[in-house]
Amino acid sequence: MRATIQEPSGSSLSVEPDTRQVVARRAKVVILGAGFGGLAAARGLRHADVELTVIDRRNYHLFQPLLYQVATAVLSPAQIAMPIRRILSRQSNVTVLMERVEGIDKESRTVQTTNRRITYDYLVVATGARHAYFGKDEWAETAPGLKTIADATEIRARILSAFERAEAVEDEAERQRFLTFVVVGGGATGVELAGAITELARRVIVRDFRRIDPSSARVVLVEAGNVVLPTMPPKLSEEARRHLETLGVEVFLGEAVTRCDAEGVALAGGRQIRSSCVLWAAGVMASRAAKWLGVPADRAGRVHVDRNLNPPDHNEIFVIGDTASVIGKDGRLVPGVAPAAKQMGEHAARAILSRLDGRTTGPFDYRDYGNLATIGRKAAVADLRRIRLSGFSAWLLWNITHLWFLIGFRNRAVVFVDWALAYVCCDHAARLITDRHER
Amino acid sequence: MRATIQEPSGSSLSVEPDTRQVVARRAKVVILGAGFGGLAAARGLRHADVELTVIDRRNYHLFQPLLYQVATAVLSPAQIAMPIRRILSRQSNVTVLMERVEGIDKESRTVQTTNRRITYDYLVVATGARHAYFGKDEWAETAPGLKTIADATEIRARILSAFERAEAVEDEAERQRFLTFVVVGGGATGVELAGAITELARRVIVRDFRRIDPSSARVVLVEAGNVVLPTMPPKLSEEARRHLETLGVEVFLGEAVTRCDAEGVALAGGRQIRSSCVLWAAGVMASRAAKWLGVPADRAGRVHVDRNLNPPDHNEIFVIGDTASVIGKDGRLVPGVAPAAKQMGEHAARAILSRLDGRTTGPFDYRDYGNLATIGRKAAVADLRRIRLSGFSAWLLWNITHLWFLIGFRNRAVVFVDWALAYVCCDHAARLITDRHER
Repeated sequence: MRATIQEPSGSSLSVEPDTRQVVARRAKVVILGAGFGGLAAARGLRHADVELTVIDRRNYHLFQPLLYQVATAVLSPAQIAMPIRRILSRQSNVTVLMERVEGIDKESRTVQTTNRRITYDYLVVATGARHAYFGKDEWAETAPGLKTIADATEIRARILSAFERAEAVEDEAERQRFLTFVVVGGGATGVELAGAITELARRVIVRDFRRIDPSSARVVLVEAGNVVLPTMPPKLSEEARRHLETLGVEVFLGEAVTRCDAEGVALAGGRQIRSSCVLWAAGVMASRAAKWLGVPADRAGRVHVDRNLNPPDHNEIFVIGDTASVIGKDGRLVPGVAPAAKQMGEHAARAILSRLDGRTTGPFDYRDYGNLATIGRKAAVADLRRIRLSGFSAWLLWNITHLWFLIGFRNRAVVFVDWALAYVCCDHAARLITDRHER
Repeated sequence: MRATIQEPSGSSLSVEPDTRQVVARRAKVVILGAGFGGLAAARGLRHADVELTVIDRRNYHLFQPLLYQVATAVLSPAQIAMPIRRILSRQSNVTVLMERVEGIDKESRTVQTTNRRITYDYLVVATGARHAYFGKDEWAETAPGLKTIADATEIRARILSAFERAEAVEDEAERQRFLTFVVVGGGATGVELAGAITELARRVIVRDFRRIDPSSARVVLVEAGNVVLPTMPPKLSEEARRHLETLGVEVFLGEAVTRCDAEGVALAGGRQIRSSCVLWAAGVMASRAAKWLGVPADRAGRVHVDRNLNPPDHNEIFVIGDTASVIGKDGRLVPGVAPAAKQMGEHAARAILSRLDGRTTGPFDYRDYGNLATIGRKAAVADLRRIRLSGFSAWLLWNITHLWFLIGFRNRAVVFVDWALAYVCCDHAARLITDRHER
């Protein structure tokens, strides 16, 4: 006869009268990464009787979709980032550690970080993505990507410094180089960056200079494929391209970058563009998760997982978000977008809860709510499956959606006020050149 | 007979019929530095018919009195800094250049910057102050000071990282070292920093950790002299010290630092304090202005100027603010505080205007409105000459005064909302560890 006794701490004690085996320990769940996926998993387990450890190399959760607004001096970093501890401070079953993962030992079920070894019963790997330069890693120094706050403030500094140098120099050719901006990559990030830089040049800072006319700045968007926003229906891609050109962005399609250095870029078709500011929005690859786990990955380094989000032979491990490669019900790859990561995190939490209760749960089922991208300050394109929007209504929807998903009441209120002011007054107080660009 | 003709541009044309000499050129005024002094001079000349050039190595004006709040994660950089171009964008007679000064040639009346040579008829030198380490410049790497935004975010990162490391490590002695903070220097900056770190540890982040108790953090304020806030009346200095101790700060008076490295500090009396976070608030020295001008300076490098704020033999040059050494009407040195810099800038502008009109103006007359310093989140000391306040009323006055002097409506509104929220909710959203501390 087996008796189950509830201990005051909430853990279950299983007593086998015959063998006198006493097993009393809460399950240990370790979550690597506090992005959309990792946090969704942590919150999904907030009522669970587990020992939860969330590990991230940074102390904040970053709302990445708005990162381009920090890069173009519309928002400040603190308005799109929230300390992880603050988000989880009321969840008593979680410990947060600011550590960098060095490796994972699947056999001993241990995570090795810089200063610690942490054992787990269940592991959720949600370590996200990094920039990819298609083998030309030396381009990273010249052309920063946009994945972290440090990236965003670096890009902001380069954009603003370019206008400052243009104002200061005497040589006309140099002035032109400083007033030329190149964005490589026509996905959502590249489109949003290009549109925002143009808006900055033509509306925000246009009266701030005496020797140059900022609105004469040249913004070039270079895309190797045939359309911008390739994940959108063709009609919306075309609308986006036309709108970018109306804003003043030069869109070069079917052009790959062959050279990228301090002078500018060269394109496959032979064209050269002299620029002091080249930004990389052309490729991402997964974190090192596949290497740590020693499991198969795709060309971008994403871990192949099954419909339960487990890698082969280890159903105590879940790999989610941008670092996972999941095939959805429709046979297509689940995209590396925030809502997908969130849903995967929620699935991992539900799966773990079920396992703890001795139940089973169904496979992961991605619900695609659609796709949005802004272009400048008044327009966007939105593909919501049955509804397609473009222009101002899409832009409004984009803002409401993103505002809603921001974590924390305070941030929503502050960002709302900021956006309202920015929209009405063109007042970009976040236009600071800081840190290593301080001369 | 002399005829004076007003040209449409506003400049005066003097025609001497006999000699046919035509002199038609607006006076060139160059201002080095866009801090309180430089900006006050620029704004004082906003209606003047001059060619004004403002040069600063950064693109923003910094409200330094609130810098310690960025360092202790209460405010974000963008809330206390405003782009110089934005501040001056409506002033049509001014050109802003983001350049670093390399030298000044008094004979040819030229300023040499990294990329330009700029001639002047009148020069206002307002280049401020830097940290001084009393000959131990190697301490700068271990113990950052607080003069720039980069300083503030560096200090913020070190403070927050110390708590993160304390949470992660296993060794008890190391944990203690991470939970010990040392502030060197008992002036206003040191007092404000020490009080704010204590508040952060005991109120703001106290619930965010599981393995450590942040309120057990040790904050030590070390002062070589016999009192904190030496520029205040003795009674207020004593009140400040007592209030710091009530907050939990350990105040060591009459103790100079003899060693400062990654392990902590050693004091002259023999005491050693192990700490991973030592902050320097103990000394400032002037910018290189005296060297550029080749004129006499005091021990801190400040340029000796007369009651008109001119260095010897050059009444077309004005040196103002923290980089100047001025004796006031009362025979005492005018202090290196924001209101003094502002008044000196206004005087320089008036003096230049008078000279252009062929008038004379009286000497600089410093009006000392008093002295304020906060201690933690609810108290301050205020010496307003006839009135002395301490406690909550002083704190309220401090906030109102600083809020009022912030430049720009938007910043005032945002900072007010921020402070209100921080005070009510203990919600410090600016608690980010960014940039080179990202691991």
